[in-house]
Amino acid sequence: MVEELKEKVFKANLDLVKHGLVIFTWGNVSAIDREKGLVVIKPSGVSYETMKASDMVVLDLQGNILEGTLKPSSDTPTHLVLYNAFPEIGGIVHTHSTYATSWAQAGRDIPNIGTTHADYFSDAIPCTRQMTRQEIEGEYEKETGNVIVERFKNLNPVHIPGVLVENHGPFSWGKNADDAVHNAVVMEQVAKMAYISYGINPQLTMNKHLITKHFYRKHGPNAYYGQ
Amino acid sequence: MVEELKEKVFKANLDLVKHGLVIFTWGNVSAIDREKGLVVIKPSGVSYETMKASDMVVLDLQGNILEGTLKPSSDTPTHLVLYNAFPEIGGIVHTHSTYATSWAQAGRDIPNIGTTHADYFSDAIPCTRQMTRQEIEGEYEKETGNVIVERFKNLNPVHIPGVLVENHGPFSWGKNADDAVHNAVVMEQVAKMAYISYGINPQLTMNKHLITKHFYRKHGPNAYYGQ
Amino acid sequence: MVEELKEKVFKANLDLVKHGLVIFTWGNVSAIDREKGLVVIKPSGVSYETMKASDMVVLDLQGNILEGTLKPSSDTPTHLVLYNAFPEIGGIVHTHSTYATSWAQAGRDIPNIGTTHADYFSDAIPCTRQMTRQEIEGEYEKETGNVIVERFKNLNPVHIPGVLVENHGPFSWGKNADDAVHNAVVMEQVAKMAYISYGINPQLTMNKHLITKHFYRKHGPNAYYGQ
Amino acid sequence: MVEELKEKVFKANLDLVKHGLVIFTWGNVSAIDREKGLVVIKPSGVSYETMKASDMVVLDLQGNILEGTLKPSSDTPTHLVLYNAFPEIGGIVHTHSTYATSWAQAGRDIPNIGTTHADYFSDAIPCTRQMTRQEIEGEYEKETGNVIVERFKNLNPVHIPGVLVENHGPFSWGKNADDAVHNAVVMEQVAKMAYISYGINPQLTMNKHLITKHFYRKHGPNAYYGQ
Repeated sequence: MVEELKEKVFKANLDLVKHGLVIFTWGNVSAIDREKGLVVIKPSGVSYETMKASDMVVLDLQGNILEGTLKPSSDTPTHLVLYNAFPEIGGIVHTHSTYATSWAQAGRDIPNIGTTHADYFSDAIPCTRQMTRQEIEGEYEKETGNVIVERFKNLNPVHIPGVLVENHGPFSWGKNADDAVHNAVVMEQVAKMAYISYGINPQLTMNKHLITKHFYRKHGPNAYYGQ
Repeated sequence: MVEELKEKVFKANLDLVKHGLVIFTWGNVSAIDREKGLVVIKPSGVSYETMKASDMVVLDLQGNILEGTLKPSSDTPTHLVLYNAFPEIGGIVHTHSTYATSWAQAGRDIPNIGTTHADYFSDAIPCTRQMTRQEIEGEYEKETGNVIVERFKNLNPVHIPGVLVENHGPFSWGKNADDAVHNAVVMEQVAKMAYISYGINPQLTMNKHLITKHFYRKHGPNAYYGQ
Repeated sequence: MVEELKEKVFKANLDLVKHGLVIFTWGNVSAIDREKGLVVIKPSGVSYETMKASDMVVLDLQGNILEGTLKPSSDTPTHLVLYNAFPEIGGIVHTHSTYATSWAQAGRDIPNIGTTHADYFSDAIPCTRQMTRQEIEGEYEKETGNVIVERFKNLNPVHIPGVLVENHGPFSWGKNADDAVHNAVVMEQVAKMAYISYGINPQLTMNKHLITKHFYRKHGPNAYYGQ
Repeated sequence: MVEELKEKVFKANLDLVKHGLVIFTWGNVSAIDREKGLVVIKPSGVSYETMKASDMVVLDLQGNILEGTLKPSSDTPTHLVLYNAFPEIGGIVHTHSTYATSWAQAGRDIPNIGTTHADYFSDAIPCTRQMTRQEIEGEYEKETGNVIVERFKNLNPVHIPGVLVENHGPFSWGKNADDAVHNAVVMEQVAKMAYISYGINPQLTMNKHLITKHFYRKHGPNAYYGQ
């Protein structure tokens, strides 16, 4: 049905390992074919060393499994909520990468304090609120998607392609699976540099105009970075 | 007698190096065949580069050497105390991995502040009390095992598969040698992320319901993570 | 026109990856042939994995493109300002390397607190002032060069071969492209060690005579380090 | 004259790179043949990639070059002072390794706070006093050796096989070149773990009896670690 997309999702999952974002099976990538309304996602708890492209699971946007013999990632309901809420996105990544997860555990937004961050995110990388007992004990993974969507009520997911789920870890997204992986790498690196920067100067100040400049140097109609 | 187990213990020791948990000979893995009552452990101070599966030492639960020409790990009495006290465990790992050892040197439990930790440990990773002069100058390695067992008086070693020995370093365990190595990797990673998280926000708060949810997502009769 | 220089600039760009200073396309190296007045620089946003020596762009000191089919690095105007202002330098490097960028984000000079630093820099590595809205919204990359030159008003760029641009990241330079890369590696390492040193002792003191000694052990007429 | 020793010193220098202790040419290893009174040391400022065993320089204990066409390491006078003052040692290493250098820059002894440290050092790793202007502007490298020897007035260099030179970096030593490299690796690792440990708990306390126990588990007549 979507063989090419399965291949791409499979490779994107391996890229998480290559970029040092994932230990064991602690991560997952999905992508969506918007025309067909089909989502492809990594199976749950399968070792990256033995995983094959044909192990990828195909679902519709309601979560019905259409292809694949393995159970999809346990985080699948989170991915589906995001695909339904953010029609512009084509790929999603979840990891427990070291520094981004540490900011999530600290329950803090990652402030936009440098051009590396501003090249990809127009503002801070937001952290969700703590989930309630009811949400956790109910349809937990779906509710995880819901708190993300709630956090983006007044934010643009295309301009801020990632989030921290409190006490959990980062989710990122993008035009497709590769782009979502790219943003996961960026999140980890800006999380690391923000941690170090505040260690050097807890009162540091950011230049707001510089954020705007760098973001629009790479995005929108007046972008002039790259070929 | 237990050739297959020797091979597994040998490979698990090499995995410590592969996962970056061990420098030089600073680590050891053992495993037990519960039916035969036989423990297999790494020899003491042998380079990981020249070590062979046949170098593994076989002992009974009283510490009598039954097979092997080399001296067993100097930490063998600690392993034996744990196998005798915790009948559910099948493998034990000791390392001086960087972040877990740093928490041990700091004399602090590693708080359970995120789902990465909660996926494997139902509560904080406990740190033992300081050992007394008498314990240290007596049967030191055996007493090391005893302070671990004392620390677990009201804790379940299956739900908390690791410990920090104060001013020393981490021990972890599991169903078998591989599982104990897996938990050693997890301990190092959660130790690192907890260090960074408190650096970002010393007053961070953990969601208790999230711990319970994540632990039982992977453990017990209602687990639904993996295939 | 300058085939050999294109080859050198190409290789120097790859060296940034080898030394772990660059993720994706976050860096650029240029070099100048002073006799011919020609600058060679990396193209903008081209993957390091597919980039070829022939992709390097050749410009004059006014920024006119003389050779090359790709757009030059978006930071080209910064490089040109520096080549015009600092006639002694032959190569320039810009990266977003982790620790140097973190000092830039913190808006702090990197103090000269050890002989590793003093072997290459006669004083602190300076950080520029925040740019004004007008500078950012105007000819931004050129103004970036201008704030660097302003910061060096009373400093010798040969004795201090690098700078931090506030909220952005490091620029370094040297006799040629290789030398500029070398100094970029040094900046990242001294930035890392300064961060850790202040973490250990916020009130540390530097021995001024030791700085002088080490700098002139490697530089000037009385240098005696090396062959 | 001492071909085998030149080979060993050459290899030990390469091991510094393998263990991640050295960038560029920032390190040197020497060894001594006590019977012949000959010291072998790395040449100054030669790239580790092109260096050969035959490039090693041979000197007597007064610093006269007996063999070799290259200039010896600029730190040679420091090595000679140590060989003359500490007759038990057979090899010396100097690096600018990240964490040990950071403690040196902080001007602080590395406290003995764990068994990893105590397995190799019977007490804190001492830091020298700041050198005077006269010492720095005089025979600097020789005076560097002298402040180390002064620091060891009441310390045993066999039980404490390393030192931090303030604002500079670590020197370590051992029975031979390999042993000195081994101790350099240990210093870097315990420096890193001590930094993290104090970050977790600034008021941590060490168990003095545990230090004694671990040191003598590996050293002296009652040692029982290893084969």
